[in-house]
Amino acid sequence: MISTKGNTLTITLSVSTFTISIGTASALSMIAYYYIRPRPTKHKYPATTAEDFNAWGGKLLRWISDYRESCRDLPVISRVEPNYLQKALPTSAPNSPESYEAIMSDLDSKILPGLTNWEASNKFFAYFKPHASYPAVLGETLCAGLNVMGFDWIASPACTELEVVTLDWLAQFLNLPDCFLHSSPGPGGGVIQGSAGESATVVLLAAAKRKDADRSKMVVYISDQTHAIAEKATMIIGTQFRSIKTSPSNNLTLQADDLEKQIKEDIKKGLTPIAVVATTGTTSSCAFDPLPPINAVAKKYDLWVHVDAAYGGAYACLPEYRDKFVGLEDVDSFCVNCHKKLMCPFDIAALYVANRRPILDALSLQPEYLRNAHSESGAVVDFEHWQMPLGRRFRSLKLWFVMRRFGTQGMREHVKNGVNLAKYLAAKIEASDDFELAAPVSLSLVCFRWKGRSEEDQKKLLDAVKATGDCFIIHTKLDGKIVIRVACGGIEQDEEDIDYCFSVMTKSARAL
Amino acid sequence: MISTKGNTLTITLSVSTFTISIGTASALSMIAYYYIRPRPTKHKYPATTAEDFNAWGGKLLRWISDYRESCRDLPVISRVEPNYLQKALPTSAPNSPESYEAIMSDLDSKILPGLTNWEASNKFFAYFKPHASYPAVLGETLCAGLNVMGFDWIASPACTELEVVTLDWLAQFLNLPDCFLHSSPGPGGGVIQGSAGESATVVLLAAAKRKDADRSKMVVYISDQTHAIAEKATMIIGTQFRSIKTSPSNNLTLQADDLEKQIKEDIKKGLTPIAVVATTGTTSSCAFDPLPPINAVAKKYDLWVHVDAAYGGAYACLPEYRDKFVGLEDVDSFCVNCHKKLMCPFDIAALYVANRRPILDALSLQPEYLRNAHSESGAVVDFEHWQMPLGRRFRSLKLWFVMRRFGTQGMREHVKNGVNLAKYLAAKIEASDDFELAAPVSLSLVCFRWKGRSEEDQKKLLDAVKATGDCFIIHTKLDGKIVIRVACGGIEQDEEDIDYCFSVMTKSARAL
Repeated sequence: MISTKGNTLTITLSVSTFTISIGTASALSMIAYYYIRPRPTKHKYPATTAEDFNAWGGKLLRWISDYRESCRDLPVISRVEPNYLQKALPTSAPNSPESYEAIMSDLDSKILPGLTNWEASNKFFAYFKPHASYPAVLGETLCAGLNVMGFDWIASPACTELEVVTLDWLAQFLNLPDCFLHSSPGPGGGVIQGSAGESATVVLLAAAKRKDADRSKMVVYISDQTHAIAEKATMIIGTQFRSIKTSPSNNLTLQADDLEKQIKEDIKKGLTPIAVVATTGTTSSCAFDPLPPINAVAKKYDLWVHVDAAYGGAYACLPEYRDKFVGLEDVDSFCVNCHKKLMCPFDIAALYVANRRPILDALSLQPEYLRNAHSESGAVVDFEHWQMPLGRRFRSLKLWFVMRRFGTQGMREHVKNGVNLAKYLAAKIEASDDFELAAPVSLSLVCFRWKGRSEEDQKKLLDAVKATGDCFIIHTKLDGKIVIRVACGGIEQDEEDIDYCFSVMTKSARAL
Repeated sequence: MISTKGNTLTITLSVSTFTISIGTASALSMIAYYYIRPRPTKHKYPATTAEDFNAWGGKLLRWISDYRESCRDLPVISRVEPNYLQKALPTSAPNSPESYEAIMSDLDSKILPGLTNWEASNKFFAYFKPHASYPAVLGETLCAGLNVMGFDWIASPACTELEVVTLDWLAQFLNLPDCFLHSSPGPGGGVIQGSAGESATVVLLAAAKRKDADRSKMVVYISDQTHAIAEKATMIIGTQFRSIKTSPSNNLTLQADDLEKQIKEDIKKGLTPIAVVATTGTTSSCAFDPLPPINAVAKKYDLWVHVDAAYGGAYACLPEYRDKFVGLEDVDSFCVNCHKKLMCPFDIAALYVANRRPILDALSLQPEYLRNAHSESGAVVDFEHWQMPLGRRFRSLKLWFVMRRFGTQGMREHVKNGVNLAKYLAAKIEASDDFELAAPVSLSLVCFRWKGRSEEDQKKLLDAVKATGDCFIIHTKLDGKIVIRVACGGIEQDEEDIDYCFSVMTKSARAL
C-alpha cells in the first residue's frame, strides 16, 4: 500500500513499513502520480465539503418533516398576491456566497407562504392528491446525489437495470398481463417517462410511424372525458384527433359503437385512423372505458390502443377492481403515474408497451458519440430510444425505495384507504340534506352537487370553501354541468379529515 | 387555545386553564372536529414518521458524501455484465416492509458496482461532465419533499415565481439580452424545461405554428455538428430537416451562405423553411456557429432562430467569451442546460424566448378542471402552456440554492476552471510526441488524435484506456475522422486530475 499524508510518503510493503520524508518526496512525485490513487479531493468551496452537506442537509430534512407535520396549521391554498415573490427577492443573484442560514430563513418567510400544500396537507382534495412518501423523497435525494445519466446501458448499468427490475415488480403488483414484463419472452416491457402526457406522446408517435400517411391526415380517437394530455400529444406530433362524446347513461365512458362510427366517417373522408386512447379512471369522474369492445374495434381498423391509467392504474392492485382492467392483455400500451397514487414524488410515470419495436422505430437515433459495443451487441436495453429526451435520471430509485419500504401489502393498504374514505364521504353526502351525488363513486373520487341549486350557486359554494383556506376542492363539468369533485386519499388521511372536509362544505353552504 | 393529548382535552382561555378528562371528551368530540385543528397526524407506517425520515435521511446523506469522497477508489466505468442486477435482485417486490438497513446494504453491494461515476469521479472525461453540487442536491431534495405541482400559478405561486426570479438572475449572470428577461417590458422570458431536447421540440413547435403549411413540407435547418436532439425534435413534430455540412476550414461551423443556398433549393421544391438551430458550443468540438450572418439569412426568409447552448451557454458568463455570443439579441430562443456546467443535477434546462406568444399558440390548452380566476385575469404566468407535459416540479429551487450558495463569483470561477484545465491539457498534448490536437481548444473541451496513427489505432487506444477503468474518455468524429475527446472541468477537478488523465493516455498508447 502507498499513501501520502502532508509531505510524507508512506510505502507499506507486506510486513515492513518505512517512511521517506520531505526531501525525497518531491523527486518521487512523478511515481506518486501514477500509483498514489486515491488522493483526497481539495475542496475549493465550503459548500462542496461533506461536512457542510451533511450538517445542512440534516437541517433541511428536519425542515421538510417539520413543514409536513405542521401543515394542518397552514392554509392549504396560498394566499399570496401575484408577483409577491418578485417583490420580496433581489433582482439579481448575489455576487458572493450566501449562507444556508439565509437561504433557510427565506424558505420560512418567502417560500412557505407561496406554497399550495399539495403533498403535506390532508386538507388537499383537489386534482388527484399526490403522495410523496418519505422513502421516495430519499430515493429522489439519492438520484440527485449520484447524478448518473441513464440514457443507455453503459452510461450506468444500475440505472437501466433497476428500472427493468422495478417496473417488472410494479407490473406484477398491478396484475398487468405478462406481455408488459421485461422478464417475459416477448418484445414488451416498461420504461419510466416523466408524465402520462409524455407517455401518450411517445406511443402516439409509434402509432403514427406504423402508418403510411401524412400526419395531418392521421386521426387519434379520444373521448370528451380523456385528459387534455392526449389532445396536447396530438398537437405535438401534428395529427388530428376526434373527441367522442360520452353520456351519463353510459357512465361517461367511451362507447365502441360511437368509436367505430367515427372511424368509418373519417376513412370515408380519406383520413387514416391510427390510435385510440382509452382511460381507466377518468380525471373528472374516475370512469372506466370498457376495453374489450374498444379493443375489438381497434383490431378491426388496425389502431394502436393506449390505456391512460395515470391515476386509476394504481387500483389494479386491488382484487375488487380487477374486472375493470379486463382487456389489458390486448392493448398496445398502458401508463400509470407512480407520482399519483403510488407514493412517489413527481415525476415518474410507468409506461408499458406490448412491443417495443414501433417505439424504437419512431424514436431511435444513434449519433457517433453515443455508439458503444454493448448497445450494438443488442444484449442490453437502451432506454434513450424509448423516450423523447436523451437524458434520464435514476428515477427507479424512488419506486424501489417505496416498494421495499412499504411492501406490496403496505402499498395495497394505502390504495384501499382512499377507496374507503371515498365511500365514507359518499355515505355522508347521501345522508345529507345539502348535497347529492353527481356520479357513481369510483376509486377515491366523489363527485357531487349542492342539492337543488343553480350552476351559479355551485360556483359560489366552491369560492366560499376556497375563501376559508381550509379545504382545497375544485370543480369539473360532467355532461355540461358543474360538479364538485373531492379526491380523497392522502397517505395519512383518515375519516377525521373527511369529516372536516364535509363540515367545511356544509358550513359554507349553509352560510351562503 | 384548544388542544388534545391522549384522552385529555385542554382548553386554555387567556389566563385560566381547565382540564376536562375522559368521560366528557367523547361528548365533546363533535365540537373538537370543528375547532381542534391542528391535530397530530396518526402515522400508519413507521416509514412515514419524521423520526424515521430524519434518522435514515441523515444516513443516506452520509452515504452520498462517502460515495463521492471515495470515488477515486472506484473504477470510473462500471465493470458489470449485462443483466447483473436482474440476477441479483428478487423477481418480485417484497410483500412486507423491508428495513432501510437492507436497502442501504443493497446500495453498497448491488447498486454501486453498476454505476458509471459521472458526478463523483474526477476521472470522468466523457460526454460533458455533469456537475451536481451539494447545494443543488439539497434543492432537489426540498423539491421532492414539498412535492408541489407548478403547472399554473395558483397550483403553487412560489414555484412559478421563483422560476421567474432565478431565470432572470441566470439571464443576467450570462449577459443575455434584455429581451429574454421576465422583468423586461417585452413579451419574452425564461422557462425551465427538462432538457435541451425538450426545449428544441417546444420552440420548433412554435416555429411550425407560425407557418401555414403541412408539417411534412416544413424544413428545419441544422448542421452536421448539431446535437442529435434537434433531429429527434423534428422526428417528434413531424417536419423535415436538412443537415448542412460543415468543414474544418470554417472550424466546423454552420455557414450562412450554405444555409441560404439550401433554403433556396427547398423553397424551389415547394417546401416551407421554418427554423434554423444554431449551436454555441457543439458537442463534438465546442465550435460556435456565427450568429449574426445566420440571423440575417433567417430574417430574410422569416425563420425562427433557436440557439442550442446546452453546454456552451454557461461560458457566456466569462467576459472573454462574450464575443462568441454576439447576435443573441436577434435570435428567437436560447437554451442552456443548468445540469451541465451550472452545478445542478439533471434535469433543468433554461429555455429563453424573446416572445412567448408563439409558444403559447402552439401549446396552450385549458381544460375545465384547470380553469381559475388568476389565470384568466392574465396577471400571472402559467408555465404549463410553455411546455409539453402538464406537471412541473419545483426545479428552480436547485438553481436558487446554487446561485446563492456559490454566488455569481463562485459560479464564474467554476466555469473558468474548466477552461484553464483544458488549456493545461492542450499544452501537454502540444508538447508531447504521442498526440496532436485535432481541433482548436474551445471551452473546456480538448479534441486530439494519436499522432501519425490509423483510425483503427485511435479506437484501439480508447479501448485500452477504457480497459484500465481509470479514465472514461469517448471518441467523436470530426470531418469523418475519429478523434479523442476529453471534456475537462469537474467542480473539484484540478491539474493533478489532468496529469493523471494524460498519463493514462500516454501509458496506454506506449503499451500498444
